[in-house]
Amino acid sequence: MSVRILLPFFLFFSFLANAGPLQTAEQVDRWRQSHEQQIVDGFAELLAIPNVASDHANIHRNAEHIAAMFRDAGMDTELLQVEGGNPVVFAERRTPGASRTVMIYVHYDGQPVNPGNWAGDPWHAVLRTDMVENGGEEVPMKAPFDPSWRIFGRSAGDDKAPLIALHSALEAMQATGIEPTVNLKLFIEGEEEAGSPSLTRVLATYKDKLAADLWLFCDGPAHQSRRWQLVYGVRGADGFSLTVYGPNRPLHSGHYGNWAPNPIMLLTELITSMRAADGEILVDGFNDEVRPLTRAEEAAIAASPPMEAYLTNEYGIGAPEPSDRVERAITRPAINLRGIRGGDVGARARNVISPSATASIGLRLVPDQTPAHLHAAIERHIEAQGFHVIHAAPTAAERRRYPRLARLDWSTAGYPAYRAAMDNPLAQKISAILNTLSDNTLIQTPTMGGSLPLYLVENAVRSPILILPIANHDDNQHGANENLRLQNLWDAIEIYAAVLSGL
Amino acid sequence: MSVRILLPFFLFFSFLANAGPLQTAEQVDRWRQSHEQQIVDGFAELLAIPNVASDHANIHRNAEHIAAMFRDAGMDTELLQVEGGNPVVFAERRTPGASRTVMIYVHYDGQPVNPGNWAGDPWHAVLRTDMVENGGEEVPMKAPFDPSWRIFGRSAGDDKAPLIALHSALEAMQATGIEPTVNLKLFIEGEEEAGSPSLTRVLATYKDKLAADLWLFCDGPAHQSRRWQLVYGVRGADGFSLTVYGPNRPLHSGHYGNWAPNPIMLLTELITSMRAADGEILVDGFNDEVRPLTRAEEAAIAASPPMEAYLTNEYGIGAPEPSDRVERAITRPAINLRGIRGGDVGARARNVISPSATASIGLRLVPDQTPAHLHAAIERHIEAQGFHVIHAAPTAAERRRYPRLARLDWSTAGYPAYRAAMDNPLAQKISAILNTLSDNTLIQTPTMGGSLPLYLVENAVRSPILILPIANHDDNQHGANENLRLQNLWDAIEIYAAVLSGL
Repeated sequence: MSVRILLPFFLFFSFLANAGPLQTAEQVDRWRQSHEQQIVDGFAELLAIPNVASDHANIHRNAEHIAAMFRDAGMDTELLQVEGGNPVVFAERRTPGASRTVMIYVHYDGQPVNPGNWAGDPWHAVLRTDMVENGGEEVPMKAPFDPSWRIFGRSAGDDKAPLIALHSALEAMQATGIEPTVNLKLFIEGEEEAGSPSLTRVLATYKDKLAADLWLFCDGPAHQSRRWQLVYGVRGADGFSLTVYGPNRPLHSGHYGNWAPNPIMLLTELITSMRAADGEILVDGFNDEVRPLTRAEEAAIAASPPMEAYLTNEYGIGAPEPSDRVERAITRPAINLRGIRGGDVGARARNVISPSATASIGLRLVPDQTPAHLHAAIERHIEAQGFHVIHAAPTAAERRRYPRLARLDWSTAGYPAYRAAMDNPLAQKISAILNTLSDNTLIQTPTMGGSLPLYLVENAVRSPILILPIANHDDNQHGANENLRLQNLWDAIEIYAAVLSGL
Repeated sequence: MSVRILLPFFLFFSFLANAGPLQTAEQVDRWRQSHEQQIVDGFAELLAIPNVASDHANIHRNAEHIAAMFRDAGMDTELLQVEGGNPVVFAERRTPGASRTVMIYVHYDGQPVNPGNWAGDPWHAVLRTDMVENGGEEVPMKAPFDPSWRIFGRSAGDDKAPLIALHSALEAMQATGIEPTVNLKLFIEGEEEAGSPSLTRVLATYKDKLAADLWLFCDGPAHQSRRWQLVYGVRGADGFSLTVYGPNRPLHSGHYGNWAPNPIMLLTELITSMRAADGEILVDGFNDEVRPLTRAEEAAIAASPPMEAYLTNEYGIGAPEPSDRVERAITRPAINLRGIRGGDVGARARNVISPSATASIGLRLVPDQTPAHLHAAIERHIEAQGFHVIHAAPTAAERRRYPRLARLDWSTAGYPAYRAAMDNPLAQKISAILNTLSDNTLIQTPTMGGSLPLYLVENAVRSPILILPIANHDDNQHGANENLRLQNLWDAIEIYAAVLSGL
């Protein structure tokens, strides 16, 4: 019999042998109701420590504070450090008799802030009745709390929320006598928003310590439907800057217009040659390596709730690019125009033909695409449009020689996608627990649209990786007025406790 | 017999009756050689008065200074003023017995400066041995002067050069007893670089005073070959800002990339639908009104020296847009991309789908195109690409309703082209004088590429209009380190004297 057919029996007996996720959740929920003030105060304290990855003094304050939190919750902690990198807070708690180890990944650094765009100080947490955009008003940070209220501060959602939720779950389990059924490890990174520059070295240096049967990433926003979501993969990311050239100085558009080549025209033609308006990629060979979706993955997409009407209304979109489910669209590779710039617009526009125009182009990779193959395909495509491709500023001689000259600067941080198999037994067990805790069916997402360097972890530790996001989808992550909805925090505490005691 | 056949006889007798342009030029040249220090000092004094059109105090200082200069040179002067406008310096000198009146147009305001880009103070004239770009070194402003040296300062070329040249020509003529053969009027505008906002009102208010048999515009750079050039027309100008829309806020390019419409893609597609890379206009009806070139105009273009090899080398151009003479290219209407902007590039690029993208698009009109017809053709074209066209910021409802939404903001300053007939007798006479003064054949240019609102003058005064530029082509007009080559100044003095005494 296959694992798939055996699994329901296994889960049934597994539930009998433990307290059961529902019972655990109820106990933890009661504890939480009487400790909300303490949880919120602890969160505000954590959010008060600035956490931009380049702010090394405060990054260390965060790391020490978080390590102390998890020591208090009964874990052994350690700062994993490699030269030049921000410390990873590593925490561990062995469970006597447990045969499996779960590693939970969180990051404590946050995106830089532009305080002028915030309604308040990004590093001083406040409570509001709703999103700022919806007219949410500040309320005292005193219980009782309405669960639709939100805590505002940088990293409230991305990604300090899982820290406070995990810490609370562990405290609740201690207080109520619920024992984990697995060995627990935490890997709490301090430079995720800076592109995880030391992650590879940390994974290599501390490889033995980081072994686990599953890495569970707790990062990113949950589904817009507010149903719980388990994500099996991420897209890879890559990108390049593309500059094309006109005259070597701005030329008067009257004296030379429709004679001197206009780089904005050359760039718009090149862009439209690479990508159709519906998102279809027109670059030969770009899709060569794409791993097709399995039937289970197709079925999971079909079963996910249709969000298109909500999204088009919420984001003011007349019609999406492809007439397809968003969940399916993001299982395809993407060429995304991040930016374009040439000459000037608005009041600064001048009647000139500009010396150059530049586009910033992002790529999203799906399994099993490789950056090397895509770089080659794109460069071949640009050459096929008549461009001479260079990788540095052109010399005067090159400008004179080549009618079409394109400078490509590839990101040095491109990386492949990752997707775990949906029939992984631990994944199926977590799914079952999450389905037990909610009246709504868990959403299983083969690939989320965003990118994380999960391939680094997979390469280093060879464990399956899943993503369990807990923050509200409208948490304004990376932007101003980032927030966490209290109900998401309360739910996350229950989920962590149920998973840790139910696996 | 046609005027064309009679003209050589007419010119021959006309020359006999006067001193003759060559003799005049020689006399003026001798006077100039002994007055170079005085001319250069006077020019430096004029350039020291800042002349940005919005700087009203200094604009008035310029106007008073220039009026005094021409009073000293024997002219009656007056400041023509309309409410809210900068004064026009009007000067007049009647010649007993003269039947014809020539109006010379110059402007005394200049482009705003960005002093950080200049090698010195834009309002403190200095002398250099060459262009700054060519390593020109500052030399004392003391005679003897090498004619290849240049005077640097805002408006040295555009357009205070004709003022000092005209003033010197009049002084030289007084000193050498050369009499003008025409009544002379000067119209010296103070807001040309600001778009001549009061010109129509000045022309209407002072219509009688401004009557003349010919308006001779002395503005702009001369031909790159350094041969003298008489220009019969200009292109009209128009333009618009074009904004297309994506989601109502920046969306994560991973979560929504290849689902949410990317406005940069929509804009690049729309631009390439309007214009081919070779400059061909793809907008239906855009060329409906174009007046074809006459045989004389075609012949003048064919006779002009081929500058393409010089220009491609000088401006670092691998190949021009069309495989055509630049002189012919600029007799066609043009769509010029002035600027494009969406998202960000370089270090500021973010992985988002932007809410909008904007292009600034300039149009160059040829006779007899009208802005109204072009506006309609372009709006029809954009609608034909599936866009709903609006003329203000879209409402939330419009964003949700229309899959493709384009905001067009038309320039309110669009205006038609102007082209004088090449067989105009005064034009032919000036041509003959200029051809006499130089070993090189005069270049006759039916249309220059740039735009000037000559149609306003033509509408108001109904005189033919010609353009006689005198500044060196490489005078960096509008830019940093604007300059006038001394040889151009010396030549201009001779030309003005020869024309004023030879017509």
